[in-house]
Amino acid sequence: MNEELNIGPHISRQFDAELDEIRSRVLKMGSLVETQLIKTLDALREDDGSGIKGVSKLDRKVNKLEVQIDEECTQILAMRQPAAGDLRMIIATSKSVRDLERAGDEAERVANMVKQALTNEMQRKLYKGLLGLGELVAQLLKSTLDAYARMDIPGALQNMRLDQDIDEEYSRLVIRQVELMKKNPDNVADSLDVLWAARSMERIGDHCINICENIIYLVSGDDVRHAKFKDIEEQYAGGGY
Amino acid sequence: MNEELNIGPHISRQFDAELDEIRSRVLKMGSLVETQLIKTLDALREDDGSGIKGVSKLDRKVNKLEVQIDEECTQILAMRQPAAGDLRMIIATSKSVRDLERAGDEAERVANMVKQALTNEMQRKLYKGLLGLGELVAQLLKSTLDAYARMDIPGALQNMRLDQDIDEEYSRLVIRQVELMKKNPDNVADSLDVLWAARSMERIGDHCINICENIIYLVSGDDVRHAKFKDIEEQYAGGGY
Repeated sequence: MNEELNIGPHISRQFDAELDEIRSRVLKMGSLVETQLIKTLDALREDDGSGIKGVSKLDRKVNKLEVQIDEECTQILAMRQPAAGDLRMIIATSKSVRDLERAGDEAERVANMVKQALTNEMQRKLYKGLLGLGELVAQLLKSTLDAYARMDIPGALQNMRLDQDIDEEYSRLVIRQVELMKKNPDNVADSLDVLWAARSMERIGDHCINICENIIYLVSGDDVRHAKFKDIEEQYAGGGY
Repeated sequence: MNEELNIGPHISRQFDAELDEIRSRVLKMGSLVETQLIKTLDALREDDGSGIKGVSKLDRKVNKLEVQIDEECTQILAMRQPAAGDLRMIIATSKSVRDLERAGDEAERVANMVKQALTNEMQRKLYKGLLGLGELVAQLLKSTLDAYARMDIPGALQNMRLDQDIDEEYSRLVIRQVELMKKNPDNVADSLDVLWAARSMERIGDHCINICENIIYLVSGDDVRHAKFKDIEEQYAGGGY
C-alpha cells in the first residue's frame, strides 16, 4: 500500500468539496479542543475561573462535531466508494475525530478540576504545578492540527519528539507530588487530584500522537502504530514517502 | 439510518466468508486481551507471578491482529464497496479493534505492575485490593465479546449497567487508598501505583463500553455515544430496533 496520495482534482467537483468540508470540520473540532485547554490554562495562570465556564459547552460542540463528521465519512464511503488515497483519508479522519473527542473529554475533566481548585488557596498553589505540562500539551495539540491541515509527515515526527518531552515533564510532576504527599499526608487527596489532572493532560498528548500516526498512514499508507519511534524516524528521515 | 442489518447471504459467498473471517479475528483478539487480564488476576490471587510472563507476548499478538484486521477492513471497503449493514459492520469493527488494542495495552500495564508488586510483601498486600475491581472488569470484557459475537443489544445494555458497578467499585478503591496514604505517608508511592493499576482496569471497562456502543450502532444504525445511559435504556427497552 504505497500508492500516491490522491490530492489532484476528482472527476466530481462535488466530491472534492465534500472532502474539503470534512477536513475543515476536523480542524474546527480540533480548535475547539484547543480552546478548552487554553481557557483552562489561562484561568490557572491568572487565578480567575470565570473563563472556564464555557468549557463544557465547547465540549458538547466537540461531541456533536464528532457524530456529524463520522456520519459524513460513512456517507462518503457508501455513496462515493472512494479508492486508495481518499479511502485512507476517510479512515484516518474517522479515527482522528475519535481521538479529538477523547482529548476534548480529558480537557473538560481538567477544566472542571481547575475550576474547583481555584476556589481554595491551598489547591490553587498545587495546581499551578500543572502549568508547564499543560503548555507543552497545548503546543502539541496546536502543531498536531497544523500537521493535519498540511498533511505533513515531518511535522508529525516533530510532534512525536515533543511528546517525549511531555512524558518527561509528566514524570517529574509525579515525583514532585509524591514528595509533597509524603511531607503533608493531610493533603494526599489534593495532590492526588493534581496527578489525575496531569494524567488527563498527558492523555491529550497521547491522542495527539495517535492523530500524528494517522497522518503518516494517510500520506504514506504505512501503519506505524506499533513501530518504535526510532524506527519511524529513520524510515522517514530521507523524505522518501 | 435505520435500515435492517444485512445478515442474509450475499451474492458473493466469498464476501460472506471475508466478513466471517473478520468477526472471528476480532473475537480471537478479544479473547487474547481477556487472557492477559485473567492471567494477571490469577497471579495476584495465588501470589505467583510465573503465569504473567507470557502477557507481553500476548499483547504483541493483539497488536498484530489490530493491524491485520484493520487492513482487511480497508481492503473490503476498497474492493467490495459494501452498503448499509455491511458498511456499518466494517466501521464498527475497525473502531472496536482499536478499543480492544488499547484495552490490551492497559492489561499489559497492569500485568507488569502486578509482576513487580508480587516480589514485595507490602506491595502484594496492597495490590490484593484490586481483585474485586479486576474480576468485575474481566466479567465485563467477557460479556462484551459475547455481545459482539451475537450482535446483541440487550447484552450491550446489560454491560453498560455492569460498568456502573465498576465505576462504584473504583471509587471505593480510591477512597480506601487515600485513607491508607494518609495513615502511612511512607507508602504513598506504593498506594499510588495501586491507583494507577486500578485506573488502567477502569479504562479497560471504558473500552468495553465503547465496543458496546459500536454494537448498538452496528445493529440499529443509531449513534449513542453521547447519549445518557437512561435515555439509551428507555429507547431500546421495548426491543424496537
